[in-house]
Amino acid sequence: LRTRDNVDRLRVVLVRTRNPLNIGAAARSMSNFGFAHLRLVNPYEAGFREARSAVGASGLLVSAEVYRTVSEAVADCALVVGTTSVGPRQLQHPVKPLALGASLVRKLLASRCVALLFGSEKTGLRNEDLSHCHWLLRIPTQEQHRSMNLAQAVAICLYELVRNDNPPRPRGKARAARMEFATAGAQERLTTAFVEALQSSGYLKTSSAAGQQKIRRLIRRLAPNSDDAETLLGMVRHILWKLRATTGE
Amino acid sequence: LRTRDNVDRLRVVLVRTRNPLNIGAAARSMSNFGFAHLRLVNPYEAGFREARSAVGASGLLVSAEVYRTVSEAVADCALVVGTTSVGPRQLQHPVKPLALGASLVRKLLASRCVALLFGSEKTGLRNEDLSHCHWLLRIPTQEQHRSMNLAQAVAICLYELVRNDNPPRPRGKARAARMEFATAGAQERLTTAFVEALQSSGYLKTSSAAGQQKIRRLIRRLAPNSDDAETLLGMVRHILWKLRATTGE
Repeated sequence: LRTRDNVDRLRVVLVRTRNPLNIGAAARSMSNFGFAHLRLVNPYEAGFREARSAVGASGLLVSAEVYRTVSEAVADCALVVGTTSVGPRQLQHPVKPLALGASLVRKLLASRCVALLFGSEKTGLRNEDLSHCHWLLRIPTQEQHRSMNLAQAVAICLYELVRNDNPPRPRGKARAARMEFATAGAQERLTTAFVEALQSSGYLKTSSAAGQQKIRRLIRRLAPNSDDAETLLGMVRHILWKLRATTGE
Repeated sequence: LRTRDNVDRLRVVLVRTRNPLNIGAAARSMSNFGFAHLRLVNPYEAGFREARSAVGASGLLVSAEVYRTVSEAVADCALVVGTTSVGPRQLQHPVKPLALGASLVRKLLASRCVALLFGSEKTGLRNEDLSHCHWLLRIPTQEQHRSMNLAQAVAICLYELVRNDNPPRPRGKARAARMEFATAGAQERLTTAFVEALQSSGYLKTSSAAGQQKIRRLIRRLAPNSDDAETLLGMVRHILWKLRATTGE
């Protein structure tokens, strides 16, 4: 969903939603993922009026369109997809797992409008609603705990739609520098200082080559980045200076 | 996450959650995706008692463990991952996009416990909380509408963890051993000893909380394996003992 247009072609349709908090939360996740068109079929009137007029209600909630029937709410869409927590066996519709189904939706959004339907908290989508759907999406929930919270189901479906959009962005310079491993030279300076501190404290024998190698391997395994290696070197040198000052070496 | 064991190694840690509805919704999505271990750090007491004792509260909510500090809540975990809606530029931590980060978490869950931290609805995770994290996950929300509803963020992260069924590939023995990160508890012991050595040498002021957090983040970035963490702890404690012996502390 790279372009603004594609995102703009999705209609999120909530059918007979009762809890205004769920409508608000669904709207919020739409904003989070860049979708703009919320449609409500027969919402529980009092609740919806309350949600819409709440202080801080999102623009998206205020501009939500209200319909009497599913048929009207999906009239401009080339594809109508229902969502369900029910297993495929009990349904007369084709059911696609979310990851697969979302990729089909994404493709169609490149040129056509798509409706994504969510049923009420209590009953989900009824047979009458389902009859408007080309196929159904199922979020892969556990057999024993299938039914999801409505707003969470909306959030997960929308996340899956935009999931593949974000190629890792080029990072700022500062960040890139921090990720660079310290050079072998920097690691060796750190190794030397650490060995000297361990010798000065009596942990390592001065003559122990095996001890030095052990420390060298340890530092290589830790693989500090440049900044961290620099910081650690400063710390270890300070400790070494203190050890020598107090022991009068 | 095919096996029961892997799913069982994740700890979902909610830090200073205020709204009991969010705790309940987070617990519900954990059940949806098969996760069992919910931990709460300093939840808003009255709200949590209410949520836990509500009729129909899930077994998962009833068995949730309550901790006073993040440190205690993640002590048995080899990897601690924070979640954020903030962009990478403003943070001192490595930030990974959710899809990538979740795949790393999945791999580690094959053998070790992992904590996934979520901050409070108002403030998110604070710097003190973040200093316990190895890195952060970011859900790819829109620049202008970054902040997600807490329970929706939990649901999306858990969905991403179970989304792929790719079984973890068998690893060589050497590689497996190297991958065994030290637990958060072991890393914290190392942090404490290192901080004390730096204080004793005069590098750090005793009162500096920022200094302690800096060291904690540094150790988390180095991500020593269990053996190396143990070795380093022995070394640092020896140096500390010597510093104190010679300065007469």
